[in-house]
Amino acid sequence: MSESITPEGRTATEPNEASRPVTLINSFVVPDGRDEVFRQLWTETSRYFRAQPGFVSLRLHRAVTADARYRFVNVAQWASADQYRAPHLTDEFRRLIAQQPWREFPSTPTLYEVVTATG
Amino acid sequence: MSESITPEGRTATEPNEASRPVTLINSFVVPDGRDEVFRQLWTETSRYFRAQPGFVSLRLHRAVTADARYRFVNVAQWASADQYRAPHLTDEFRRLIAQQPWREFPSTPTLYEVVTATG
Repeated sequence: MSESITPEGRTATEPNEASRPVTLINSFVVPDGRDEVFRQLWTETSRYFRAQPGFVSLRLHRAVTADARYRFVNVAQWASADQYRAPHLTDEFRRLIAQQPWREFPSTPTLYEVVTATG
Repeated sequence: MSESITPEGRTATEPNEASRPVTLINSFVVPDGRDEVFRQLWTETSRYFRAQPGFVSLRLHRAVTADARYRFVNVAQWASADQYRAPHLTDEFRRLIAQQPWREFPSTPTLYEVVTATG
């Protein structure tokens, strides 16, 4: 940490944990025949997140077989845990998530860091 | 399908489903304090898979917080579902998976295809 007299410079930097890249892995339960409703809702919500600072990338996966517990899984990169969390504290997020159809699709959002990568 | 007189050409091509790229998402339960045992075992097993035809890439993720149901998640790309499945039918695979410590770490291997990608 270099010496500083500016307000920003006098703010302690965040702990490493909160400023390292993170991967959100969010698995969704989607009942049979509800793919279209889910994808419409998810696309609207993801549009909000994609516009936020710190958003890097996402991949939405659909199970190849019908018997998967989690039919859809979103794997998204964020520049930091803090930047991932910030857009979850807004009124806009509450409005998006309060939409009735979301109740059909329970999910398990969890933050991870990559510890091994090959290829 | 073009006409052919070779043995390979006379073999029906696989259905699209089995020959498209797939993503394995495999989430592991790992009890507190057992990270090292898990990672040693996982690394040995993944060495086997990484050497197989059709293996593309993998990323092993560890949860940022301690309360995650699945402490580790492997997200691996394979060129096709068939190439992913083939190495699961060998004696070598059975030997690797029969190792006692694996019983501590239940997992949920599921194949997905990417339906949306951004960034």
